[in-house]
This record gives sequence, C-alpha cells and structure tokens, in this order.
Amino acid sequence: MKFCNQCGSPLEMKIPPGDDRQRHVCTACESVHYINPRIITGCVPAYEDRVLLCKRAIEPRKGYWTLPGGFLEKGESIAEGAVRETWEEACATVDLHELYGVVDILHIGQIYMFYRATLKGPDFGPGDESLETRLFKEDEIPWKEIAFPSISWMLKHYFNDARSGQFSLKTDKMDASVAIAKSDGGTDGVPKGAVHR
Amino acid sequence: MKFCNQCGSPLEMKIPPGDDRQRHVCTACESVHYINPRIITGCVPAYEDRVLLCKRAIEPRKGYWTLPGGFLEKGESIAEGAVRETWEEACATVDLHELYGVVDILHIGQIYMFYRATLKGPDFGPGDESLETRLFKEDEIPWKEIAFPSISWMLKHYFNDARSGQFSLKTDKMDASVAIAKSDGGTDGVPKGAVHR
Repeated sequence: MKFCNQCGSPLEMKIPPGDDRQRHVCTACESVHYINPRIITGCVPAYEDRVLLCKRAIEPRKGYWTLPGGFLEKGESIAEGAVRETWEEACATVDLHELYGVVDILHIGQIYMFYRATLKGPDFGPGDESLETRLFKEDEIPWKEIAFPSISWMLKHYFNDARSGQFSLKTDKMDASVAIAKSDGGTDGVPKGAVHR
Repeated sequence: MKFCNQCGSPLEMKIPPGDDRQRHVCTACESVHYINPRIITGCVPAYEDRVLLCKRAIEPRKGYWTLPGGFLEKGESIAEGAVRETWEEACATVDLHELYGVVDILHIGQIYMFYRATLKGPDFGPGDESLETRLFKEDEIPWKEIAFPSISWMLKHYFNDARSGQFSLKTDKMDASVAIAKSDGGTDGVPKGAVHR
C-alpha cells in the first residue's frame, strides 16, 4: 500500500493521534488506511462417510487438494459465502450445518471459517479454480498432497468427530512457524506458512 | 475508494477477467482492489450475575452502552483482539472462554465475533473510548440505551443461557432492515442499521 485510495497522494507510516501503532496515513488528506484480517469461508462437504475435496487449478499450491472455500464477499453472510464457494469450486450444492472450525492464520491476516455440510446429492465436478473434485474416505485422504495446514487440521478434526458422531466447534491459531507436524503428523509436505490466496 | 493504492492512478469499476462481479480496477496497472468484510471482536465480560458494559465516548452512538469490542488487527487472533479491546475500552482483564456469538452485519460488511468471558476481578474503568463502565444485572440493563442491535442480541442470548448455565454458540445475520424488534422487543430505540465503526 503506497498511495491514498481517497486522493491518490503518497502514504507514510506514522502513529495517528489517539492510536498506539503505525498506520498508513496520507501525506495530503491525512486519511488513515487500516489493514484488517480477511475471512476465508468454506465448508467440509460430507457425503455418507466421505468428504469432497478439490484439486487446486491455481497458485498457490496448484495441484494440491483443499476443501472448498474462498474470500468472503461484502453483502453475503459467512454461511452464504461457504455455499457460494462450494458451488464455484466443486459445482456442488450443500445443506450447511453449524459453524465447525475457526482458525486464525496470524502471519497473513486471514481467518478461516468452516461450516459442516452435507452434499445434497452425489453431483459435483471441478469449477474454474479446480482441476478435479473427488470424494475421499478417511483412509483415502492424500495427506501428503493437502494444500494448507488449516485444511489438514480441519479434516483431522472432522474424521475424529465423525467416529463418535459428536461434532463441536474447533478453534485454533497458526502462524508462519506452523510446521505441518501440527496439523497432520509431519507427513504431508505442506511448506511452512503456505496460505490460501 | 477512488485511486489505486499501488500506483496512485484512478480506479474504475469493471468485471476483471475470470471474475463475476464489478470490482475497483486500476486504469493504469490493472490491480484489482477488493472490499472484504471486517471483523469486530469483543466479549461478554461477566462478573457473578452481572455483565460489564461501556458507555461510548465516540460516535456513532456516543453516550449509548455497548459490550467491549473493536476491529481485529492483523497479527492478533480473534481471542487476543477481544482481550485487547476489553482492556482498552474498560481497563478490565478477563479470562476468555468459548466463542459465543457470530453475527453478520451484511449492509456494512462487518462480522461481530463475541467470546464469553469472566472478569478476573472487580477492577475496571473507562478507557479513552468510553465515558463510563458499569456492571449490570439482567434487570438493570438499559435496553433503550444500547448502542447497536447486535449488542442487544448478544446480551439477550447471554442472560437467557445464564439461567440454565448452558451456553452454546449463537449465530445470526442482520442487515439495514433490522428493526430493533428483532434484538430486544422493539423498545431500545436503536436506529435501523446503526453500526459500530
């Protein structure tokens, strides 16, 4: 962020009056420009004992598997965004259940929010941002080819809860130092700090 | 948003390649500038059978009562932000419990996220953004002087759950048409669409 989006003048870093940290402030009109975390909304779409994953067609992590999800848009609810992303990435319609996972990705200012969901039927297929879509049983999940630590984290929790049928909200935070060990036992090869963009 | 924050050139509204909606796009460098919802993080700070509220010292809704909360900053977790805001606005330290309320405020692109919390002790007082801080029992809550519909909504749920001692995650969405009727029975006088800024 280098220029003011209100007047086009250069920005400088300084602490505005009454604030306690450095912000991007306009050198001409003095507008303060904040950087706020953004929400990635998605779901865990289940069909019987399987979960629908998408193979990413875009960088980062092209060719790796992920849950459907993407940036929340202004004007839609988090739940509506999860349904939209599932349609866009996997051409799948879902019944959305409860909010199931919230994870702060600190170093890049993203909050992942996942709903638990059930596919309305066995119809799905790759959208523009996916190379392939497929249902996986727990023992079929390609742990070494999961795109992001937060996805491994959510899938592990999901299959663990599914054994008892008792699902409860999961929360966690991750930062650039998150080794893949945290989410899946150190075997899936996700680079440290790999993130959804 | 009128100018590109990367190069300072004017922006225009158009649908970028591969997108499906109008965005702010730079007329020179073609950067796409998205508008994403922002998170307001806060808590319901309880002390015995009372809840700590802050009387706002700033607009909007100056002079009205609210729960401690504010914009999530990049680099902190939602929970850390809730603790920080409670300190800044009410000079209070809290033990944070579970994520308790998530409400989409659609028309202004904000997501309120509230944790349930317990004051570590009876010490608190107004921070820079508060005129007054006070503990309220349920029958003392000034429903006609609550700042925002989302705050009335959270407080109603909290006291309702407190009767049974069984707390569970509450979610909802609100838009500009939210009559105050939705959050508290139509008596607190909050204008339609009043929002935290």
